[in-house]
Order: sequence, then C-alpha cells, then structure tokens
Amino acid sequence: MWPRTEEPPFGSAASADDGEADFPEAAAHLLEEQRVAIVGLGLIGGSLALALRGRCARLLAVERDPDTRALARARGVVDEVSEAPERILPQADVVVLATPVQAIVELLAQLPKWHPGPAVVLDVGSTKAAIVAAMAALPPRFDPLGGHPMAGKETSGLAQAEARLFRGAPFALTPLPRTTGRAKALAAALVKSVGARALWLEPLTHDRWVAAVSHLPYLVSLALTLATPEEAAALLGPGFRSTSRLAASSPRMMGDILSTNREAVLTALAGFERQLAALRAALEADDEIVLQALLAQGPARRTALLRLVEEGE
Amino acid sequence: MWPRTEEPPFGSAASADDGEADFPEAAAHLLEEQRVAIVGLGLIGGSLALALRGRCARLLAVERDPDTRALARARGVVDEVSEAPERILPQADVVVLATPVQAIVELLAQLPKWHPGPAVVLDVGSTKAAIVAAMAALPPRFDPLGGHPMAGKETSGLAQAEARLFRGAPFALTPLPRTTGRAKALAAALVKSVGARALWLEPLTHDRWVAAVSHLPYLVSLALTLATPEEAAALLGPGFRSTSRLAASSPRMMGDILSTNREAVLTALAGFERQLAALRAALEADDEIVLQALLAQGPARRTALLRLVEEGE
Repeated sequence: MWPRTEEPPFGSAASADDGEADFPEAAAHLLEEQRVAIVGLGLIGGSLALALRGRCARLLAVERDPDTRALARARGVVDEVSEAPERILPQADVVVLATPVQAIVELLAQLPKWHPGPAVVLDVGSTKAAIVAAMAALPPRFDPLGGHPMAGKETSGLAQAEARLFRGAPFALTPLPRTTGRAKALAAALVKSVGARALWLEPLTHDRWVAAVSHLPYLVSLALTLATPEEAAALLGPGFRSTSRLAASSPRMMGDILSTNREAVLTALAGFERQLAALRAALEADDEIVLQALLAQGPARRTALLRLVEEGE
Repeated sequence: MWPRTEEPPFGSAASADDGEADFPEAAAHLLEEQRVAIVGLGLIGGSLALALRGRCARLLAVERDPDTRALARARGVVDEVSEAPERILPQADVVVLATPVQAIVELLAQLPKWHPGPAVVLDVGSTKAAIVAAMAALPPRFDPLGGHPMAGKETSGLAQAEARLFRGAPFALTPLPRTTGRAKALAAALVKSVGARALWLEPLTHDRWVAAVSHLPYLVSLALTLATPEEAAALLGPGFRSTSRLAASSPRMMGDILSTNREAVLTALAGFERQLAALRAALEADDEIVLQALLAQGPARRTALLRLVEEGE
C-alpha cells in the first residue's frame, strides 16, 4: 500500500495520493491568467518553461548566463528573458525559483527588494527544510510554498531541457502554515499542467524520504565511480553504466543538497552501511545459505518499491 | 590510455586492444564449418544462438527446461534442442557452456562421459578462475578456453534474448596453457561474428577486474535496494531506478559469481568502503570544501572510465 501522506491542505482540491485529483476548475483556469517568472533556466527551470508554454498568461525568466539567455531566445522558450531580476520579477504573479538550493535561499532573501508583491512564490529545490525556513521569513505580501519535482537527468542545462521531463513524476509540494488555499491550488494546477502528480508533504518528511531515494543513491554511485580502477575499465558493461550514472550529477547542485540535508543523508547512509555489512559478513564467512537469502530479497524488494510508486500514478 | 592486455596468443591473429582485429581469413571460414552446441538457452546462451544463426554449419542446444525448449523450437532459435546432453553434444565440434558458474564447473566434470571428443570447449561464465581450473582437468581430446561477454540485462531467460546483445561489448577470453592456436582462432571468430570485441586476459586478472566493474556494483545496488524504506518509495525517481537496477539480477547466478570470486569481490568492496567513508567523514564534519572536492571528481572520473572502454571499441 501507498504510504498515507498529509491531507491536501485545501478544501475539495487534490487528494494526496490521487494523481488524477480534480481540484476546482477555477484553479486550472486561474493558472491561465497568471504571469509566471522562472528564475534559472537550467534543466529543471528550462523544462518547466517548455512544459508551461501556452498554459499561462505570460512566461518570463531570469537567467544569469548569457549563452543560456541566447539559447532561450533562439528557441522561444519564454516570452521574455533577462539577467535582471528587478526587471522581470515585478511583472510576475507567480515566481518559481529553479536554481540550486543555496542559491534559492539567497534569492529568497533578495526577493522583497526586487518584487513589490503580491506574488505566489514556489521553488523546485531538492531539499525543503532550509528553503521553507527562508520562505517563512518573507514579508506577508508573498504567498510561498516549497516544491520538488522528482525528475532529472545526469546532464544539466537548458540544452537538455524537455517539456516531457515531469510526465508521470511525483512532484512534492510542502506548504507553510501561512500558505493560502489559493497558492496551494495554483501550485497544484501548475503540477498537473506539466503532467506530474502532486504529493503533499511536511518539509522534514520530504527531506528524509528524498535522502533515502535520491541523495543516498548519489553518494553510493559516486563512491563506486571513485573506487573503480582504470585498468578494470576494459570490462565495463551496462551494469557499471547504470549504477554509476548519478555520479555525473552536478557537483555544485549535489553539494548544496547534501549540505542542506546532512542529518537525513547520514541516517540513510547508516541504513545502507548496515545492509552492506550484512552482505560482507556472509561473503567473508563463505556462508552460501545466508548470502543466498540476502540476494534472494533483491528482485522482489525492487519490484515492490517500484510498484509502490506506480500505484501512486 | 587503454590498459595493456595480454598479447593475443596466436600468431598474426587479433590484437588484444584492437576491436577491428583481422585474424586470419581461415579462422572466419573455419567457424562456418563448425557444428556448435550451446548448453543452456538463457539470456546469454539464447542471445548467442540468435547471433550465431547462419554463421556456423549447425546450431544445437541442450536445455533442461521444457518451456524454454518449446520456445526455442517455436522460434527456430537452433536447429535441434534436447534435454539430453548425450544426444546433442557428440554432434558438436564446439561446445559452449552457458549456465551459471557452478553448473558450468559441474558440466565440465561430466563432459568426458557425454562427448567422445575431440571438441573445442568454451564457456561464457561470469568468473573465470574456478572454470579454467575445471577445464584444466579435461582429458587431452578437449581443447578448452574460458570466455565472458560483458553483456546482460537485469532480466533473464530465452524470452529476453536478442541477437544484438553482444554488439560492441567486450568479450573476455581466457586461454589455458594447453589451449591450441586453432581453438583461440575459433573463439575469436565466434566473438567477432556476434559483434563483440575479444579481450585476451589471464583468468585472475579477469576476475579482479570484473569484481570491480560488475560484482561490486551488484552488491552496492542490492544493499541500496534493501536499505530503502517503503514509505520513501512515494518519491522514487529515475536516480533510484538506475542505481537499483542490478539488484534485480538472478540471485542464483549472482550467488555463484560471488562465491567463486570471493577474494576479489571483498578487495573491491574494501575500496568502495574507503571512498564511502571519506564522503561520510566530509559530511559529518560539515566540511563543504572537502565534500565539494570529492563530489567534483565524479563527472570527470565517470567520463574517463567510459572513454577507456570506448577507446577499446
């Protein structure tokens, strides 16, 4: 069974474990009337922009990198892009922060200076506790909530962006006590319109879960890649290729994530180390019965975990 | 640079690090005249059969499972299939053993009873030291060598087999001191005709390398899968999917592999544990500079490793 998640925090709107949730028609139409500004046109921000094209009143972007701005203009990714937040943000009803986590925290501190408000503020950062804490410090004219789409690739940048990136993916939403029903409905509408499934969570629950299913796999993939001797590369096959894929993730992005989710990651790591120690012990003891019992859990366990996420779809 | 491998052990034939090696034309034609029997029509044996169709004089198979035999007949995978080795093997000039490692060792002990010889004997097992030791005990009428294609999927069985499985993959070949030039040339011809690249290695070198690039990734993938709490499955994304893929490998096959390659796997595991401990220490100390230095190695290291195997192609 699907783990029970927090109830949707707005009236008759999307239920936490129902991807086909029908929030009020009004909310869907509401998005079409919004001017949405995305800060950061990387893989996630760029894919969001592509997925939102034609689904909101106006699509704007703030992007520091001139090459990325040129690419965004050449491809018509947004209606307007600039490096100047003070030029773009005042035009926006909804601001989506799509940079690495530390940069999101810094942007939140600057936001009141750039935007006269009111505005709904959503982010798509990979950890939520630090960001939601920074959101709590925003002046009352802002209506903030955290977000995190469970989608990505080992490559980054606007050139890799695609409108389909979020299709069928869980999209965590972590409201604050102050978040209004309107902001929640708008966020749910945005999630639905990019093809993802809203999952309402407490920030700390989100961070604990994502440590287990995302940050720990990254650390393990990285340690494996760093441990592989070059001479053995002659025999590299598809197994190494998939297990090491996450090690190619952006070091800056992952550094931010690990630093803002240290405790949950260390707890998840301890659980992994216990499983690995059990495998090591069986192998050292040359105990084929115990080893086989551990190995035999693998296929069923993986299938069960993947079925849990599919049941949520 | 590509690690230097053992020189090809036959005259002007394939060089170890040149996938386009032109072994004597005679060897290529030689394969066309051989009757080849494959023992075990699983993913690897079945894919070999599909890849060898029309490239040898006659294709035979020994398969215990009646459903697999029925499927092989329905799809015309081989010219003849039977559960009885004593019926199939005497017809073969080349015997390819394609079962899990322990079963290959047992088959080698029985082979003299089933086959009046002479025959070239090749296997495709995932570890080589135990198998090559069993091959060394064969009567002189047999001409054996070890083999291991670096190809596979997390699924098994003939239904998953495909002729393209070996295209571009390294195919390790581990000859014995007694292996004739003719057997080596035939094995090289077989490897080339299924689209793979022959890589001549000492059995212990093979086992050490494959522990690092295949058996360790499996253990890590399994420990990760077993450590993932069900509640967190709600947020499973593509990262977990690829990192956990190997955990779905056949427990029996992997048990054989780990048991016959214990020491090399434990050594590779120790190297992994050292890397993971360094990451843990940086995270525990909240040392962003050290952590970032470790993370920054990931993308370049993975690219370098994959480039090494691509240069071999």
